[in-house]
Amino acid sequence: MRKGEQTRAAIVAAALDLAGSDSLEGLTIGLIARRLEMSKAGVFAHFGSREELQIAVLKEYERRFIEDVVLPSLKEPRGLPRLEAMYARWLDRQSAEIESGCVFVSGAVEYDDRPGPIRDLLVSMIRSWQRELVRAVKQAVEEGHLAPETDAHQLVFAMYGLMLALHHDARLLHSKDSVARGRAVFEQLIATLRAPAQKAVSVKPRHRNAKEKTNGTVRRAPS
Amino acid sequence: MRKGEQTRAAIVAAALDLAGSDSLEGLTIGLIARRLEMSKAGVFAHFGSREELQIAVLKEYERRFIEDVVLPSLKEPRGLPRLEAMYARWLDRQSAEIESGCVFVSGAVEYDDRPGPIRDLLVSMIRSWQRELVRAVKQAVEEGHLAPETDAHQLVFAMYGLMLALHHDARLLHSKDSVARGRAVFEQLIATLRAPAQKAVSVKPRHRNAKEKTNGTVRRAPS
Repeated sequence: MRKGEQTRAAIVAAALDLAGSDSLEGLTIGLIARRLEMSKAGVFAHFGSREELQIAVLKEYERRFIEDVVLPSLKEPRGLPRLEAMYARWLDRQSAEIESGCVFVSGAVEYDDRPGPIRDLLVSMIRSWQRELVRAVKQAVEEGHLAPETDAHQLVFAMYGLMLALHHDARLLHSKDSVARGRAVFEQLIATLRAPAQKAVSVKPRHRNAKEKTNGTVRRAPS
Repeated sequence: MRKGEQTRAAIVAAALDLAGSDSLEGLTIGLIARRLEMSKAGVFAHFGSREELQIAVLKEYERRFIEDVVLPSLKEPRGLPRLEAMYARWLDRQSAEIESGCVFVSGAVEYDDRPGPIRDLLVSMIRSWQRELVRAVKQAVEEGHLAPETDAHQLVFAMYGLMLALHHDARLLHSKDSVARGRAVFEQLIATLRAPAQKAVSVKPRHRNAKEKTNGTVRRAPS
């Protein structure tokens, strides 16, 4: 990376860090400048406005999410293995974010009543992740892993709720069990929805490791 | 009520309204004074500080919650009828709050990283509601309505997640289906946990709040 690109990336990383623990709406150019011991003018050279910086933060968050959660899961076989990998990696990411906070979760509350480009971007990112999950559920039905009457949107709604509850209980209530509960309820839901022929068969993903690094060069598996 | 009590109640009601749609942390004495066309000194006569007002808002929210959700549910028979009434009334309340916002939900994100008396109060209120739900689940097991192996904390975790997802999808994504999904997934979870002898028996609460409009689109999970 060129020097300018490095500085820009450092600004975005610091801003993402601040946005997670405090709030995206609370970000200011001044705050970032202080954090990085730069001048405000130095930050302004890279981001013409606070909004431009907030948008860059959201995009960086999504980029990391795709790299850590979406792309490696798409390497798993279509169907339940892929769906379970998506959930496991998402859960790992949320667990890692218990300390730092998550801009998708805090942003949802900050921007639900605040129209504008940031809200629009946040909504489109969350919808896109939910669509990816719905597609994985539908494929699990097509592959005969989940029962034909499975309501994909309903299952994704429940999965999203489990992630929100995990975040809520861990961060607000300092519950130690929220990650285990997030995993257990998902398994319970999947057990209920398993196609009859699959009930006895384990189609769990082999891997369960968040640390498994991929270098982000993976292309989307054909669906 | 005396005049002074009326004014105090009007201040709290206006503050609760503002806190739901904007944020509890964003509340100021000045904002309330403008909303009620009072002087700041007039508001200060009732609340010595912004924090005192924020605490009064939370307490008023909890008072209404207990009145609308907790007390009427406790009139239902112990066991599944009571648990289902709690969930149905909670869901009704959350549905009604899609426009106005909910200070328990937004407060959780606002205060998770902000220690102090407001966070402490919010945590104790949410814990108290979760304890009430856990008790109802355990009673449903004692009554033989739910299977003995039911994990009460885990079910309450899932219920909380469904409420958070309902709020998230309705307010941020403007989803029209979130209330129906919140109901359907709960029914699916309960169907899974029903004690074997109860599987065929309906122990649904007789009442469903009049405001609750079901139009028969809710899918029952296969049990």
